[in-house]
Amino acid sequence: MTKPVILHPPRNNPPPISLITDFGLSDGYVGAMKGVIIDVLPWGQVIDITHDIEPQNIRQAAFVLHTAAPHFPQCTVHLVVVDPGVGTDRRSIAVYTDEAVFVGPDNGVFTWIYKTWNVREIRELQNPYYRRARVSATFHGRDLFAPFAAHIAAGVPAPSIGPVVDNPVTFDIPDPSRQPHGDIQGHVIHIDFFGNVITNITAKMLADASGWTFELGGQAVSAFYRTYAYADEGELFALIGSQGFLEIAMRNGHAAQRLGVDRCDPVIARPAS
Amino acid sequence: MTKPVILHPPRNNPPPISLITDFGLSDGYVGAMKGVIIDVLPWGQVIDITHDIEPQNIRQAAFVLHTAAPHFPQCTVHLVVVDPGVGTDRRSIAVYTDEAVFVGPDNGVFTWIYKTWNVREIRELQNPYYRRARVSATFHGRDLFAPFAAHIAAGVPAPSIGPVVDNPVTFDIPDPSRQPHGDIQGHVIHIDFFGNVITNITAKMLADASGWTFELGGQAVSAFYRTYAYADEGELFALIGSQGFLEIAMRNGHAAQRLGVDRCDPVIARPAS
Amino acid sequence: MTKPVILHPPRNNPPPISLITDFGLSDGYVGAMKGVIIDVLPWGQVIDITHDIEPQNIRQAAFVLHTAAPHFPQCTVHLVVVDPGVGTDRRSIAVYTDEAVFVGPDNGVFTWIYKTWNVREIRELQNPYYRRARVSATFHGRDLFAPFAAHIAAGVPAPSIGPVVDNPVTFDIPDPSRQPHGDIQGHVIHIDFFGNVITNITAKMLADASGWTFELGGQAVSAFYRTYAYADEGELFALIGSQGFLEIAMRNGHAAQRLGVDRCDPVIARPAS
Repeated sequence: MTKPVILHPPRNNPPPISLITDFGLSDGYVGAMKGVIIDVLPWGQVIDITHDIEPQNIRQAAFVLHTAAPHFPQCTVHLVVVDPGVGTDRRSIAVYTDEAVFVGPDNGVFTWIYKTWNVREIRELQNPYYRRARVSATFHGRDLFAPFAAHIAAGVPAPSIGPVVDNPVTFDIPDPSRQPHGDIQGHVIHIDFFGNVITNITAKMLADASGWTFELGGQAVSAFYRTYAYADEGELFALIGSQGFLEIAMRNGHAAQRLGVDRCDPVIARPAS
Repeated sequence: MTKPVILHPPRNNPPPISLITDFGLSDGYVGAMKGVIIDVLPWGQVIDITHDIEPQNIRQAAFVLHTAAPHFPQCTVHLVVVDPGVGTDRRSIAVYTDEAVFVGPDNGVFTWIYKTWNVREIRELQNPYYRRARVSATFHGRDLFAPFAAHIAAGVPAPSIGPVVDNPVTFDIPDPSRQPHGDIQGHVIHIDFFGNVITNITAKMLADASGWTFELGGQAVSAFYRTYAYADEGELFALIGSQGFLEIAMRNGHAAQRLGVDRCDPVIARPAS
Repeated sequence: MTKPVILHPPRNNPPPISLITDFGLSDGYVGAMKGVIIDVLPWGQVIDITHDIEPQNIRQAAFVLHTAAPHFPQCTVHLVVVDPGVGTDRRSIAVYTDEAVFVGPDNGVFTWIYKTWNVREIRELQNPYYRRARVSATFHGRDLFAPFAAHIAAGVPAPSIGPVVDNPVTFDIPDPSRQPHGDIQGHVIHIDFFGNVITNITAKMLADASGWTFELGGQAVSAFYRTYAYADEGELFALIGSQGFLEIAMRNGHAAQRLGVDRCDPVIARPAS
């Protein structure tokens, strides 16, 4: 590859670059992206978040980013490549917030960031100096996103990246709705590796009543524990997870499979009457 | 997060931090832990050992740690988060040995370390300066273990971590027993990714006789080769594995499935009569 | 381990070391290799390409290396351990090219490198100073390849590694053949994580005709798009992949399973008559 020119001197201590993709780890795709990053930014600190997003699952990637990104150092560049529209006219963007920069396709994968971070500006990745000379139609992770992310970490300022974008693509994240009789209607936003069912109902929403019963997958769950170990083996129960959301879990079991629920399925929380 | 105060100046060259968890790699959990570590210790060297421990399998994690840790540099901080008791009153500890520090829950996951390393002292992770201001009930990997590990790597001395622990939790690792007639009775301690059956019978125990036959899963294995390639396709055979333990393997096949054996199953070694 | 002596002073900025193995990530094997590397080369930059090569699949490893290696910085040391012949008399080698060094068993895993890179020389890994004092019969990744790779990255010159090898093992990579009537006869060289079927027919070979139909798995595919998103859901189609090879893909589906094809199966490209 023709190495892109670094127009601005790199910082002495470039921030880390985190990676989220749906490429899996059995091919050379992730390795190629990492190679490109450290070719632009020798000794760059590349941190894998995950490469096991379900193929093309933008919502899953958006949620995983939402849960991991807040814990990284100031100025981290988060690179997310879940990109079913690669090679079409979908835009490629960098989202600048007070705390970090997010680089990836403009396909909604940054929806949770827009909802919960303070966004300063969004730039389209257009300056040809910061991508590879030849960009393939099918692998922008390697040819465009990785070199842009590395240059941003190296200190290239936002105005050099490309024009401002003011209407980024988002998907709908409906807030839970509170019914007149006190019920809360929410939905499942994530199933994690352990099978825990994570909902969009927050601890705060549950704070003003007690004795909640949670209905999902045609079943009612009313046990509520502080942590997993207080449940009995195989018992379904509710807890507040580490991101502050209501979770339905099963001790030493896969709650989502047991309940037969998936992302987007409804959850109703009913207070004790 | 409120960044913990570093009471003692960090070393110039902090040691690496290795990671073993059962979190899998499809969520943001491991990424969040890494973010916390490099937030406390910028440019920290974080090395994944594995995140694919079976959920809550403390014995598997203990054995994987045992096989990998001896090969790391002096002073490495090994962080192990397989933690079914998270949020209960189980203790969180740092185990100081001559060669390395081990950080994780006090649930037996360091049993092999106690058995084979020279332990200097064990400290409970109690000093609130070295954990996050708010510790969730379900994710101590992120909120407590990661920041403690990073601070220990940064040079915080043992007495600042917390009080001494002198009765850590262990599980039983029975030594193989030698029967009067020369048989050795051992058991399976690990099934590896290739399906190799690793037992607790050592090369040394087999050295004083020859013509051994190994019985496990209702079958007898008497072929003994120096390495895999000397076996025939699909043949069950014994060898001394890279950790010095007797292994039963199958060339280009999964010995454990073929034998129908699992961790803890008995193995009998009989010398030629 | 007795730490190997570094005979030559290490470079100030050692190049990165990339890793490809078939060890999976559920045991301590990869961790042990990484520990050995950073023990020899503190602060070495170790970059995982993949550890999910199918057990003993030398051809898959060779292709993944081929796709990832060109994107790494100058002087990178690529360590590949897919080694069914470990412990036999198969040689261990370092392949020096203009751009990078490749370290691994001499079993054909570097065949694509020999075909497409400018090889300067090949050395056998023989100097006992650069391996561990005791080398097991079954884990050369840890005991021999990792320490050699780390020493090479540290600056040990090629002549100190061992004698020159001039007849390395290769496997056959047949070029596609062009039939008199214009057909091109090729074969499948890789199935990627998404199920894309990658063939050895290049974009260049297809450039001098149009209206191609591709036959594989008993089916004919004639749709040809620039990228995935232009296909209909579930439609089989052809495209030029990011390595410049003809690929048969299926939008949001697994083309290889749908076609029932595997590595080495034939593909025929027929121009419009």
